[in-house]
Amino acid sequence: MRVEELGEFPLIDRLARVLSRHGVSPRVPAAKSGYELLISIGDDAAAWKAPAGLQVFTTDTMVEDIHFERRYTSWTDLGWKALAVNLSDVAAMGCMPLYGVVTLGLPPDTPVEGLEEMYEAMAQETEQHGVGIVGGDIVRSPVFFVTIALLGYSQTGTLLTRSGAKAGDQVAVTGHVGCSAGGLRTLSVELTLDPETKGHLAAAHSRPMARIAEGKLLAEHGVRCAIDLSDGLADDLGKVCVMSGVSAVLYANRVPADGFLKQAFPKEWLSLALGGGEDYELLFTAPPRIMERACANLPTSATVIGEIVSGPPGVEVLDAKGRPVSLAKGGWDHFPR
Amino acid sequence: MRVEELGEFPLIDRLARVLSRHGVSPRVPAAKSGYELLISIGDDAAAWKAPAGLQVFTTDTMVEDIHFERRYTSWTDLGWKALAVNLSDVAAMGCMPLYGVVTLGLPPDTPVEGLEEMYEAMAQETEQHGVGIVGGDIVRSPVFFVTIALLGYSQTGTLLTRSGAKAGDQVAVTGHVGCSAGGLRTLSVELTLDPETKGHLAAAHSRPMARIAEGKLLAEHGVRCAIDLSDGLADDLGKVCVMSGVSAVLYANRVPADGFLKQAFPKEWLSLALGGGEDYELLFTAPPRIMERACANLPTSATVIGEIVSGPPGVEVLDAKGRPVSLAKGGWDHFPR
Repeated sequence: MRVEELGEFPLIDRLARVLSRHGVSPRVPAAKSGYELLISIGDDAAAWKAPAGLQVFTTDTMVEDIHFERRYTSWTDLGWKALAVNLSDVAAMGCMPLYGVVTLGLPPDTPVEGLEEMYEAMAQETEQHGVGIVGGDIVRSPVFFVTIALLGYSQTGTLLTRSGAKAGDQVAVTGHVGCSAGGLRTLSVELTLDPETKGHLAAAHSRPMARIAEGKLLAEHGVRCAIDLSDGLADDLGKVCVMSGVSAVLYANRVPADGFLKQAFPKEWLSLALGGGEDYELLFTAPPRIMERACANLPTSATVIGEIVSGPPGVEVLDAKGRPVSLAKGGWDHFPR
Repeated sequence: MRVEELGEFPLIDRLARVLSRHGVSPRVPAAKSGYELLISIGDDAAAWKAPAGLQVFTTDTMVEDIHFERRYTSWTDLGWKALAVNLSDVAAMGCMPLYGVVTLGLPPDTPVEGLEEMYEAMAQETEQHGVGIVGGDIVRSPVFFVTIALLGYSQTGTLLTRSGAKAGDQVAVTGHVGCSAGGLRTLSVELTLDPETKGHLAAAHSRPMARIAEGKLLAEHGVRCAIDLSDGLADDLGKVCVMSGVSAVLYANRVPADGFLKQAFPKEWLSLALGGGEDYELLFTAPPRIMERACANLPTSATVIGEIVSGPPGVEVLDAKGRPVSLAKGGWDHFPR
């Protein structure tokens, strides 16, 4: 059934039902967060009782044929990723996600069943993280887009910021980088890869896992500076440098790329790892003693890949012999000149 | 200059500067609200210290050629209205607006100067209401759209909801209705109207004033049920009936339409007033004693136009002689069948 056959308000009802089946809207864990949801989907606004504390607020959008192509992206993956990129921003602040509102811009021929699949994936993800989808807006649009705005709160009373890096800090990153960019390439170009490699890379691109637990643990262990990797490792580290007024050195041979990526792209893996983007890992900096303790306590591997030094904002990448590595391109710009 | 000539990050800087000139981002009135903004535009998320209390969360979108046409809508009006419709949702909950994030979907040829005008209007409006635009997302899109998500808080400790109407309540509305729909018609159809009438109607459509002070006063005076008029008076009252499980009677001869509307549309003013939509007035219900006191204390006129009765959800419109008035169409649906 197409959206135009169903109508706006019955569509809202159907999508709200998908969420309710997962107990998403009413079931925000008040006991843990101290928040108590009073009003969810259906009124002029959602409403809740909040305890005193730190809150964070972010928004991220995916537009068809800009951020994703329908032929490579299932509805399930789209729903997952649209929420994951927002969760990742909250994780990068060291916070827990709480309430989200979802805006859908829909061409009239959008299949209702596709949107239900999308909401099913979002519902599973919200259930995992104790998030409530508490409202939104559904509008007609010539192009499909989904915007999520997400509120989070701090359980630790401290935040991770882009401006917290200091000379002498080490630079580390969670998990592996580059697989998402490799995955995008395997989706859009015909490559002769074994199914396991292809599946691994595609999943890294389509199903990023926001590092919520990691962000919280970093804040708990005294880390004060982080960013999530959306535009590419080197580029995102550059943003930290600008915001912190520091310089960074990155050791290319320490950058954690996994075997799947290296096998699939033996010549390009490093450039995919440094510049690929959409990894949604956390990049963070801290003095060595804090770094050691923090990394030891994460549920995910974390690798020290560089250091923060005094100097004008910028990132220098060095190879194993200490020679500068030149980067092809600096991160994702929606309007590159 | 076009957006594609400037690039994404310089554009964010320029728009953030427009907001800073109005002191918008840092200047959220902590003293009054108890909120203290810690991090604004530029990090993974905005962050603030919040006191304990009730919060509300809403989002609204405007898509080019769906919600507005560029030839009838200046950049200034677009910025104003995109924020006003969100402010209005917060007003309809009896709350004060606090922090917003703005998503812009931009075709590459969007003029930067237009966006600056748009932000100038938003900055003026945020200044008026003590709102901080604390972040957002700028993405490439084949169609222009603007989505705002807005957080608000209650100063009174009570909310206005759509589900609070009870049999025996009176139904009232702030200000006048129908001018916005009349204004849309004067913008899109050549009508021989005097400039004052035309200007009045056009302004009602392009520059709605969110009823923030009124919403708060209603909550303070014991009103518990409200909705803001976006889809049309009769239709929005119908939503209150559904959410409250009640029926409503509306007296057509009491509906407040002003002289400009009646003069410009002598035959159609009532249908514009009942079904036109986009008035962004508050419709509210309360027992007669509360209603009388509340209406007397508003800075804006408010008119009792009907009553809530027991019965299946629905709205009956009666003329001066008590005869039913049939309504042409029931409100705005983005995907009408």
